[in-house]
Amino acid sequence: MAAHADLVRSQGKTLVFVPTMGFLHEGHISLMEIGLAHGNHLVVSIFVNPAQFGPTEDLDAYPRDMERDLALCKKAGAAAVYTPDASSMYGPGFETRVIQESLPNHLCGLSRPRLFSGVTTVVTKLFNTVKPHVAVFGEKDFQQLAVLKRMTLDLDFDIKIVSGPTVREQDGLAKSSRNSYLSATQRKNATALYQCLEETGKKVAKGQLDTQGLLQEAKEKIAAVPEAAIDYINIVDPNSLVDVARVEKPALMAMAVFVGKTRLIDNMMLYPPG
Amino acid sequence: MAAHADLVRSQGKTLVFVPTMGFLHEGHISLMEIGLAHGNHLVVSIFVNPAQFGPTEDLDAYPRDMERDLALCKKAGAAAVYTPDASSMYGPGFETRVIQESLPNHLCGLSRPRLFSGVTTVVTKLFNTVKPHVAVFGEKDFQQLAVLKRMTLDLDFDIKIVSGPTVREQDGLAKSSRNSYLSATQRKNATALYQCLEETGKKVAKGQLDTQGLLQEAKEKIAAVPEAAIDYINIVDPNSLVDVARVEKPALMAMAVFVGKTRLIDNMMLYPPG
Repeated sequence: MAAHADLVRSQGKTLVFVPTMGFLHEGHISLMEIGLAHGNHLVVSIFVNPAQFGPTEDLDAYPRDMERDLALCKKAGAAAVYTPDASSMYGPGFETRVIQESLPNHLCGLSRPRLFSGVTTVVTKLFNTVKPHVAVFGEKDFQQLAVLKRMTLDLDFDIKIVSGPTVREQDGLAKSSRNSYLSATQRKNATALYQCLEETGKKVAKGQLDTQGLLQEAKEKIAAVPEAAIDYINIVDPNSLVDVARVEKPALMAMAVFVGKTRLIDNMMLYPPG
Repeated sequence: MAAHADLVRSQGKTLVFVPTMGFLHEGHISLMEIGLAHGNHLVVSIFVNPAQFGPTEDLDAYPRDMERDLALCKKAGAAAVYTPDASSMYGPGFETRVIQESLPNHLCGLSRPRLFSGVTTVVTKLFNTVKPHVAVFGEKDFQQLAVLKRMTLDLDFDIKIVSGPTVREQDGLAKSSRNSYLSATQRKNATALYQCLEETGKKVAKGQLDTQGLLQEAKEKIAAVPEAAIDYINIVDPNSLVDVARVEKPALMAMAVFVGKTRLIDNMMLYPPG
């Protein structure tokens, strides 16, 4: 892959990179399309990264369909797909990690303590092998996007980070590979996350800015959903991810909710009036 | 610098990199010469990296002479010298670090707990900006070399790590920017480090393989030197840096010794007979 990257770069092409964990859906395809608007040689990686799963998380159950994924990448215009295996990514004696002090101590990082060091480490490895000019990440994983923008800046990666908006089902549920875990009933109930974000967005647009009240109402709405259990719902500064007391300027509402055993995340920017 | 690297690479040149903290001596020049044997475009960096100094260490006192350094780089055949400043390397909100689990928990890492995460973080940043094909490090900083080889492997840097042998004064003292701190008397006494390594090497070559006895004798020799205080003297496996009980195969003897207030390090491979 590194030799391929050198060749492509030596030809003067702009290499764009979309890292994924596979089981691709329209959200990933949308990131590939955005990527091709920023460059002319698209590389996709497919790697379910064990380093970002905790011991009790869904690594083994994580859905996989390599054949279908490769066909989708080809159709979307990928010039190459990088599919390393875990034993080559984390060989004997592996002991180096990329960590952050602050951004992981919020939102998903609190309940998934290994997640973001796993993400920053694997993305560093992927960046070093794929050598992209541009890399594209989805806004659905908003904290991941913030973490990787910070990492790219801090570690002087000569890579432009581009984000793609969350792609949703017709009823508003954010597209996710993990949606495949949901039963039909759970799938229907899961739209509550989006509805809750939408409703909060409307309240803020009308001038309800106190986050304590907004979060109280949101939590009551989610708590009323069958099989739902809130991991977190927060309204935060979109750069620092620190909680804000009032939505005086655009803020991010982010949530993680278990629907049955499936942990779903979603987020939306909240814009105060004027 | 990154744009320069892209240009050089697009011209098909082989970019070799020698990172330094400046105040260059024959050891650095030797690394540059070794570098030019592995490539045809030499980049040297000069950056006294605050992240690898502890709060009580010699960051402010570390010797600097940029004008002389630039002349020496030019004379040695450097095509470019990268001299970032600390405020651009560690800007507001900087929070990403590259760490290792095991290799730093030996030798110098024990008394300088910030050293190696500072080294791995800054070298990651330098690698990402200088984009070398080959990077050269001195064997005098043996643990640093081991740490950076491991990091390069673990993080998939597409960079060949080359090492250069320790360059010594006529009386055996390893060349070091920190030698400039020594008084004339201290300078003379400091040769005890090299003599001690040499003597131990001869004992091992003659079949004295028990490290407890070897280290006991070495420590007695160093302890007898005026103004000397041992930080550590160990005989370790050169890959894992773990102490060995007997020199059954080639092992590394490494030491750090304060001579007055100046902390000097040196090391030598020990080869058993046959």
